[in-house]
This record gives sequence, structure tokens and C-alpha cells, in this order.
Amino acid sequence: MSIRIGLIGAGAMGVHHGETLAFELGCEVAAVADIDLTRAAALADRIGTEATDDPISVITDADVDAVVIASADSTHEPYALACLELGKPVLCEKPLAPQASAAGRILAAEQEMGRRLIQVGFMRRYDADYRRMKAALEAGNLGSPLLMHCVHRNPSAGADFHSAWMITSSVSHEIDILRWLTGTEIVEATAVHGRSVLEDIHDPQLILLRTSDGLVADVEFFARAHYGYEVRAELVLERGTVSMGMPSGLQVRTDNQLVTPVTPGFVERFAPAYRAQLRDWLVAVRSGRQDGPSAWDGYATAVVADACIASQSSGGPVPVDLPTRPALYH
Amino acid sequence: MSIRIGLIGAGAMGVHHGETLAFELGCEVAAVADIDLTRAAALADRIGTEATDDPISVITDADVDAVVIASADSTHEPYALACLELGKPVLCEKPLAPQASAAGRILAAEQEMGRRLIQVGFMRRYDADYRRMKAALEAGNLGSPLLMHCVHRNPSAGADFHSAWMITSSVSHEIDILRWLTGTEIVEATAVHGRSVLEDIHDPQLILLRTSDGLVADVEFFARAHYGYEVRAELVLERGTVSMGMPSGLQVRTDNQLVTPVTPGFVERFAPAYRAQLRDWLVAVRSGRQDGPSAWDGYATAVVADACIASQSSGGPVPVDLPTRPALYH
Amino acid sequence: MSIRIGLIGAGAMGVHHGETLAFELGCEVAAVADIDLTRAAALADRIGTEATDDPISVITDADVDAVVIASADSTHEPYALACLELGKPVLCEKPLAPQASAAGRILAAEQEMGRRLIQVGFMRRYDADYRRMKAALEAGNLGSPLLMHCVHRNPSAGADFHSAWMITSSVSHEIDILRWLTGTEIVEATAVHGRSVLEDIHDPQLILLRTSDGLVADVEFFARAHYGYEVRAELVLERGTVSMGMPSGLQVRTDNQLVTPVTPGFVERFAPAYRAQLRDWLVAVRSGRQDGPSAWDGYATAVVADACIASQSSGGPVPVDLPTRPALYH
Amino acid sequence: MSIRIGLIGAGAMGVHHGETLAFELGCEVAAVADIDLTRAAALADRIGTEATDDPISVITDADVDAVVIASADSTHEPYALACLELGKPVLCEKPLAPQASAAGRILAAEQEMGRRLIQVGFMRRYDADYRRMKAALEAGNLGSPLLMHCVHRNPSAGADFHSAWMITSSVSHEIDILRWLTGTEIVEATAVHGRSVLEDIHDPQLILLRTSDGLVADVEFFARAHYGYEVRAELVLERGTVSMGMPSGLQVRTDNQLVTPVTPGFVERFAPAYRAQLRDWLVAVRSGRQDGPSAWDGYATAVVADACIASQSSGGPVPVDLPTRPALYH
Repeated sequence: MSIRIGLIGAGAMGVHHGETLAFELGCEVAAVADIDLTRAAALADRIGTEATDDPISVITDADVDAVVIASADSTHEPYALACLELGKPVLCEKPLAPQASAAGRILAAEQEMGRRLIQVGFMRRYDADYRRMKAALEAGNLGSPLLMHCVHRNPSAGADFHSAWMITSSVSHEIDILRWLTGTEIVEATAVHGRSVLEDIHDPQLILLRTSDGLVADVEFFARAHYGYEVRAELVLERGTVSMGMPSGLQVRTDNQLVTPVTPGFVERFAPAYRAQLRDWLVAVRSGRQDGPSAWDGYATAVVADACIASQSSGGPVPVDLPTRPALYH
Repeated sequence: MSIRIGLIGAGAMGVHHGETLAFELGCEVAAVADIDLTRAAALADRIGTEATDDPISVITDADVDAVVIASADSTHEPYALACLELGKPVLCEKPLAPQASAAGRILAAEQEMGRRLIQVGFMRRYDADYRRMKAALEAGNLGSPLLMHCVHRNPSAGADFHSAWMITSSVSHEIDILRWLTGTEIVEATAVHGRSVLEDIHDPQLILLRTSDGLVADVEFFARAHYGYEVRAELVLERGTVSMGMPSGLQVRTDNQLVTPVTPGFVERFAPAYRAQLRDWLVAVRSGRQDGPSAWDGYATAVVADACIASQSSGGPVPVDLPTRPALYH
Repeated sequence: MSIRIGLIGAGAMGVHHGETLAFELGCEVAAVADIDLTRAAALADRIGTEATDDPISVITDADVDAVVIASADSTHEPYALACLELGKPVLCEKPLAPQASAAGRILAAEQEMGRRLIQVGFMRRYDADYRRMKAALEAGNLGSPLLMHCVHRNPSAGADFHSAWMITSSVSHEIDILRWLTGTEIVEATAVHGRSVLEDIHDPQLILLRTSDGLVADVEFFARAHYGYEVRAELVLERGTVSMGMPSGLQVRTDNQLVTPVTPGFVERFAPAYRAQLRDWLVAVRSGRQDGPSAWDGYATAVVADACIASQSSGGPVPVDLPTRPALYH
Repeated sequence: MSIRIGLIGAGAMGVHHGETLAFELGCEVAAVADIDLTRAAALADRIGTEATDDPISVITDADVDAVVIASADSTHEPYALACLELGKPVLCEKPLAPQASAAGRILAAEQEMGRRLIQVGFMRRYDADYRRMKAALEAGNLGSPLLMHCVHRNPSAGADFHSAWMITSSVSHEIDILRWLTGTEIVEATAVHGRSVLEDIHDPQLILLRTSDGLVADVEFFARAHYGYEVRAELVLERGTVSMGMPSGLQVRTDNQLVTPVTPGFVERFAPAYRAQLRDWLVAVRSGRQDGPSAWDGYATAVVADACIASQSSGGPVPVDLPTRPALYH
């Protein structure tokens, strides 16, 4: 069975998903929608499909079997709800929604349907190094995890990438990874601010997260780190540590230096994970079974993000109040 | 246009190509042929196609648009010639043929046709690190290349993997990479033998290659290196060096050690390059244009391999006598 | 002028100092004192000097020009005061004293004398990598420092190495390095505790330190990290980062792994720094001039350590109340 | 017993030895001799001793207990012979002599004396990484050694540093290390030349060395490598490899790069080994026992160097004809 994909959003992520579907996975994209018809058309032209500025028409199109949502964060909710209504599988870019309340409405709608249709784009779960880290943790020979140190740096960001958005859009990756790696929920979040490269935005930020069994993770997120894109993590266990994200690849010796390139952006760093995410999602859609990051994962992350943002104002630890996980997501 | 692929060979490489075509590239494999029908059937079953023990029937099948040859090295010639006769594009595993004479016959047949149909499976050209090495060389700021050091190690090999086969099957990768990187031909080959892990096979081998503009490359090939699969290279230029192949990825600290995994085999190391090779070849087949490693590349490599093997007997340097490159391959 | 050294303490650090003075620096040790005469005698015998169980007799010995104090932390105060009274130069192991109050009394005594005689054993300032880090920071091309991440792990510790002692004995290194690197004072300390490998001791600990110009440092100290001794640091600046402490040296490839040894203890890691500290201190003693880490550095560190320990009880940030730096230490 | 050292030579190596003796090892240098009195005086002044332009007067000075020879290579023979005549211990910079014939005369004179007085400055044997490599080899768990790859690069060299001198002065280090690591003698040498950065000097050179039990080593020596000073080695054994010399230390992330400094010269790289060499030699002199690299090691290296130089002319392998090791050196 060939799956015809409707793609909502032709920004950076939409382009990346569209090209990966068409050129890397030999997949048919039935239509591309973007409120900016020009960029929708440019992408559609490149991957050989139709463009529209009406996302809902793509979702309702009978020729569309499944939908990839890569539009602005605040639009995820109406599009995801429209897909749920029609029973169409969705791969929704993270965050599921920028506030826990909106994410909760999607979660409620899916529970009402009684079956899982939504996968959230936490594509780091598909990264080879994170998977090896999880395997090393689960092997058990290093004991239980005690601490986790995370570094997440972007080379630059627009002037509108404010303190709260940095949490929902970027730190949400670390929130999800911490939940996924440890299999526990986060119970407390603290946002620590020191010197910033901007006056009115906290950048870099240091976020402390505490899990239900007491592991403490510190996350440096630095949106304007200037030097390149880099994601690193070290898990400290009772009998050793596991780390990932060291720059590697080509090495150049010149001018009294050994130089290893750092990837300039997340696409160069995580392209294989994005491809693997789409490939596994297509397999899941074909099989009618959903086993990727769920709406619950999107919701739980949004609740933690809300607590991080609250801590940005209060300056102290903020408890995370997460309801019991519904049966659908066990 | 959807391309239907005929796959000849269901051994390790055939399985890898078949699964990559089917599961990673969403491509239709029309049939799988292997002289061992059981293993052809096992692969065909997994990727949803038909199996046969008659490779020629696959090549002549009107439903087959292009052919991947991954059968035993000595069978490449008849299958490649059969494809040429029908004008079907071919991706032929390296070596094009185990002797320069056989490779020369394929080259002659293709020239007679007057158009390029054959791509040889020198998939290292599709590896990200080798590509970056070539780009760093061509950037020019490090000056001209002077020396190249290569290391190519397999964890183990069967008792029948003899000294000459090690050249045609494995060192051929370094021969091709040296030609591709420098854009020059190899004019002399010397096989140096020291202590060996076997009595009647030279393993490891140290091969010296000299290019037409005087660069000297040393290649360690070690088929039974025991500890893992590893490919490394360092290009020494006038103002610096460029190296690739350092193990990277996950790091584990335990027992007074920092441990970085080494890939156990070439599949783990080069899977992205194999996929990229197939993807680019499919694009080329669709466009009717061939721009990957050509039959000439396969032939030139075979001529150098012949010289290496002659040097294994003589013990001294053996000149490489390569005819002028035919116009078709300019 | 040959300097005759009196050595107080023949425990691990005393032995290391004594052997370094005698075997690496060709220096005369006039006497070794330890309350355990047996171990004093064992060391004295090895380095060719006299042993006693009376430290004060060594300090007052007219043949002793300068004193190295490496006895139990709580005895630093009386011995340092005895040296000050006689005007003898002192190299005192860190901490200067385990409480800020005791360190303050030493500071007051030295000020009363009107000249600097005390150097505190913050030997990381003599480590080549920390020095390069300071040079890289001061070069200025990477901008101002924003964050610092520190990791400090010991392989194991006795059952009596409790939460507060971990601060005064170990985290004091990071406190000093942060002050030394940035040239600023620390104004706030927070001790964060999560899961511990022990029930009644916080191990590992995560300490947050904030400097007067807003830099935030996080310090993981893990006394029972099991796998080896390791000290790492990364300084995050506006236009890049500087890191140190990556394990290096010999690399072994075997069993599908690239293995780099991690030093088993601080002696192996920092022996060159300990030697350089003694060498520079001897030069300073000969010249009658003191320019190493001062009693003020020992005192300021003790004040920050007190705040860390207070935060271990309160759980929240504790302000650091440091008096103005006295003129003697400008 | 305090040892008074006479230092012959106040060039780069003489200055390094003199300063290390005086400032790092607390040792008394009795006199410095150099045919250039000005530079002898400059060094003598800095380390607090006398200067002369008459090396023989230093050797015969009754106040000189032992001699360090760091003068021009061609003068090693007369000075070493003068020391032998007076029974004074010598640390002679490598090479013992630039020709095997001259080295042979020193060896003969020492044998005639009947006791070992000469240590040759093969200071790499005192380098921590080479020692760990030897320990890893001798541990035996990786099996027997099969191949060795060596890289030895200088940033630049004077116009008079010709092809033969590169062997006696620089490749002699690798010749010695190979003999020392494996405990075997070298039986064949081949000099391979490719493209060079100069017209009349072979630079870089690739030297192949074969030991008596069949191990083959390839040595790249590049005197004008431009980018920095670097020494690396990888020993390939039956069940793994051991490598050393990876640049390490500080790492800077900036401009999309992870930058690790490469040492600019041999002093920065090997200062600890030079110091350890002098320290152990002083201990040996005090004890009247010689156990460092011997005149035999200096001679054997000179014989291999002669063969390398002969191969530079002949272009092919040159057998190494080494006499039986005299009993004195067992």
C-alpha cells in the first residue's frame, strides 16, 4: 500500500520533510499547503506535487491518507484536531502545542476517539547516539542513573526567539529525551538565569529538571551560541557515565591546530534521525499501528515546559503537576 | 517514472542492497536471482517480490528497467555484458571483474555501444567523510598532496580469502579512492609483506601506490584484524593534513577507561554511503544519465590490482600500464 | 641559597610533596613530622631525612627555612599561626581551614604581620590546561564568559567523607578556579541534591555558583564515581567555548572498542601541577616574595564553602557575604 | 652526593638541558662550554655558572663529575672519547655520531674500558606514552606485533637540513624506538621518495624498516610539515592496535570548529621526557650504574641510519649488517 501524504507547512521544517519524503524515501506527497502560497508552490514544484494555501483542504482531501504538520506552533492544535476528526494519522512537529492547555485538548480528543493517531516529532529518539545511550542505560551494568548533563546550542536566533519560546521550541527536546531515556516523569523544573547576550531575553539559560526518582538533569540551552550547532549529553550512573554528541568526522591539521568541524545547524546534525522518523512513521501508518512518541509525550512535555516558563518568572523551583497517564498511552 | 530493479545475488551485499531499495528508498524490486534459490526466496519474501535461480531471466525480464549485480565477482562479466546487450543500466558491485582482462572486455563492449550504462559500486565516493576530504583537498588552501596513509581493517575473514583476493576485493576501495581524490592515475604498485597471522596468506599487507604526479600512498590492509572494522585515511599536503575515519559516537566511561565503540563491520560503518549510492544511481537511471564511478574506473582499478598482485610475487615495484582513457569516459 | 624544608604530615599528600621535593626538585627536606611516627619515619627514611611526631618542633627548628603543611585540615590553623609567628614561609594544603572563621583568624594574623608568608595549595592554578583556559579567556576574542560547567569525580571515598567535607576538601578546587579564572568573587551558592549512592551523604552533588558579574557555574562533584578520577571544565563565552580535561594519551583498539585510559587518581592527573607548584613556591621563598594563591584566596574559598554547606541544609540559594579584600592582597 | 655537571653546547638543546638541570632539577651546573662564547655566557649567566669556549677544559675540570654533550653532531666523537678517557659519565645527545664508523669507534673505546659510561639521548624512551605503548605490547594480551606506523613532523627546517641529515638527526628517534619497543634488531631499510616540497631534498620521506622477526614499520618524516610539531605511532598487533600521540589538552569551539592545539615544537611536546631523562641519568650517575640507552643503542641506530641513507641513493631495500652485540651491552 502506497501512502499519500499531505504536508502542512512549507517553512524550513516543511521543506526538509517534503524533500526527505520525496527524494530519500521515494514517497508520494499528495499536496503541500502553506499560508504563503509562493513558498508552498516552490516546494511543490521541486517535489512534483500540488500547492495550496488552504491547509484544511489538504487534510480533508480524500486522496490524502496521512498528514505531516510542520506549520507554526500555534496552528498545530486546529490541524491536529481536524485530522483526528477524519481519523487520519498525523506526524506533528514538536511542540504538540506551545501551552499545556492546548496540548491537553488534543490529548482529550484523541482519547475520545479511542485510538492513537498522533505522533509528535521528537525525532531525537531516532538518533543513533541517543538510542545507543538508552541501550547502554538499559544494559544495566553501569547501575542506575544519578545525574544528566545536557548542552543544546544553536548558532543564532531571530530577535523574536524569546525566553519562553526557547523552552517550548528547543528545551522541549531535552524534556522529551529525559522522559524517554529514564522512563520516568519530571516532577520539578527550575530556570536559572545568569549573564545573557541580550538585555531582554535570557540566553543562555540553565534549566534544572528533577525526575520522579530523584535524578537531576541540568540543561544548558544557548540559542545564540555563535560558533555552531551542537547537542551533547552525559548520563552519570552509579558505575560510569555515557556521553554522546562529540564532534567527529573530518580532521584538519593546519596552523598548529587539529580542527574538527562542528555542524552548522540541526539539519546537518540530525538529518538521519529525521529520515528515520519519517521512515518508521510511514511503516506504522501502513500497519495501522502507532508506536512513536505519542500525544501523551507531547502533552507531558508541554506541562513541564509550562513549569520551566513559570520558573523563569518566579526564579525558584516549580513543581510539575502531571495527571495520571491515560490507559490509551500505556 | 518508477524504476523496477532486478537484483542479481542474494548474499550479504545482495541482501543489503535489496533491503535498502525496499525499506529505505521505497523502491520496487521486480525480482531477486541467486544460484541458491533458498536464499533468493528468503530475501524476495522479506522485500515482497519474486525469486529465481536464473539471473539471466531477471536481466531479460521486460518488467526490469535496471539491474543491480551483487553476485560472485567472477560472474560480473557475463551479467554485465547481458545488461549492456539490452541497453539496461547496471549498478555492478566492485570489482567490475577480478582481472583487468575481464574488466577490459566489459569496457570494450560499453564503448562499442557508445553510451555509459555501467556504474561500479565504489560506494566510498558517497561517504560523507571522503567527500569532505576531497572538498578539503580541492579547496586548495592546504597546498598540493604529498603522501597518503590508509588503514583498512576487517575483523575476520574466511580461510579462502587469499592474498590476491584481498587486493581485488578490498584494496580496490583504496585504489579507487586514491584515483578519485587526486584525479590522477596510479603508475606503480609495490606489495610489502612482513609477519603474517597466517602461514600461506600475506595478512596484513602493506601496499605502496605511486601516482602520476609523484604522490606516494601506503595502504595497510588487514583482513583478520580481530578487533573490529575500521577505515581511516590521512592525506598529507604541503601546509597541513586532512584525516578521516576516527571512531566516534557514544562514549562510555567505566573501569578507568573512556571507551568509544568501533563498528563491527562495513555495513554499520558505510550504510549511509550504500544508501546514498543507490539513491543517486536511481536518480541517474531515471534521468538516463550516468555520472557515478564508471566502467573505466572499474577497469583502471583492475589494472592497478593486477600490478599489486604481480608485486606480491616479485617483491619489488611493478609499473602500472594503463591505456589512454577513452573519449566516452571524459 | 639552598632552602631547607620542614614537612608537616606524612599522609598521602605529605608523601607526595616529600618525594617531589627530594626526587624531582633536588631539594633538601630538613625534617618530617607526623603524629603517627611510624609513617613519618618511613617517609623520612625514603627521602633521607629525620622524623618526629612533634610538628611544632619542626616549625621552630632553626634549620628549617620554610614549611609545607599537609596534615589534617583541622590542624592547619595552629601550624600556620606558629609559622607566621616565626616569619617562616608556608605552603599550606587546601583548605586553608575547614571553616571561614578559622581561615579568617589566619588571615588576620598575616595582616597583622604586614607581609604575605602563606601560600594555599590550590595547585590547579599550575595545571597546564587550566592555564591555557585562562589564557584563552583573557585573549578576549571569544568575548565574555557566560556559563561554566565543571565535573570533578573521584573513584571512591571513605565512609566518613560526608556532604560538608566534600565541599571544603574537593569543591574548594572549583571555587578557587572560578575566582582565579574570572577575577571576580562568588556572590551566591546553591547545593542541589538528587539521587545519591549513599543514604546519609549527598553524593553526587550539583553546586551552582554565581559570580559578581552574573556568570553561573554548575559543578558536579561525585566522590564515589567508581570509574576513575576525572576533572573537566567548559567555559561558555559569547563567541565560543573553551574546554579542558578530555582523557588522552595512549589509545588501544581491541574488542570493537577504542579505549583511552582515564587516570585512576589525582596524583596521576595532576603530578606535573603539584611539581610546578612546589618549584614556583621554592623560587618565591628564595626571592622572599609571595605571588601564589594567598591566604585571602584560602579565606574567600572558605566563605563560599560555608555558603555551599548552608545551602545543603536550606535547599535554596545562599548569599555569600565576603568582606572587602584587604590591601595586603591587592 | 651532589653531582656537578659540565655542559658542552649552548645551542637550543644545550639551553634546554642547562635550564632543566638548574631550574627543574635543582642541580649544579659547574660550567658551560660553547665555541660561541657569547651564547655560552648568556646561558651560564642565566643558570648561575661559568662559561668557556673550550669544551675540553670543561671535560678535564676536576670539579666536573659528569658531562652532558649537546654540541654539533660531528663533535660528539672527540668529546665522548675525552670523557671516556677520564672515566666520566656522559649523556650524549643523539645521534651518538652521524656515521656508523664514528659511532663504532666510541663503542670500541668504551668496550676497551670495560664499563659503561655513555648514555645516548634517546629521550623518547622516557615519554609517558611510549612507555605505556611498550607496557601494552609486553602485557601480551594483544598478541605479537605485526606492523608499526609512525609519523614524525617538524613545522620547518633550515635549507641545510638535507636528506641524509633528516635520517641521522630525526628518523634516528624512530629507529631507536622500534628497536626498544620490540627488543629486536632492524635487518632492512628502504627509503621511498615521492613528491617533495623542495627540489633537491627529499621531504617528506617514507622509510620502511624490517625487524629480524619480520615486523614492517613505515615512518613518515616530514621536516617542513608547516602546521606544527607532531609525533604519532600505531602498533598493529594480532588482536588489536595501540596508538599514541593524539593531540589533546585544551579544546576551543568557535567558528563552526572544535580546535585542539598541536604543539609548535619538540620542546613543548617532550619537555617532561627530557626532564625525566636527566633525572634518571643523574640517579644513575650517583649510583655509578648505567642503564639508559647505551653506546650500543647509539651504534646500532647509526648502522640502520647508514642503510637508510644508502637506500636514498639506490632506491631499493638495503640490508642492515649489524655485528653481534658485545657482552658489555647485554
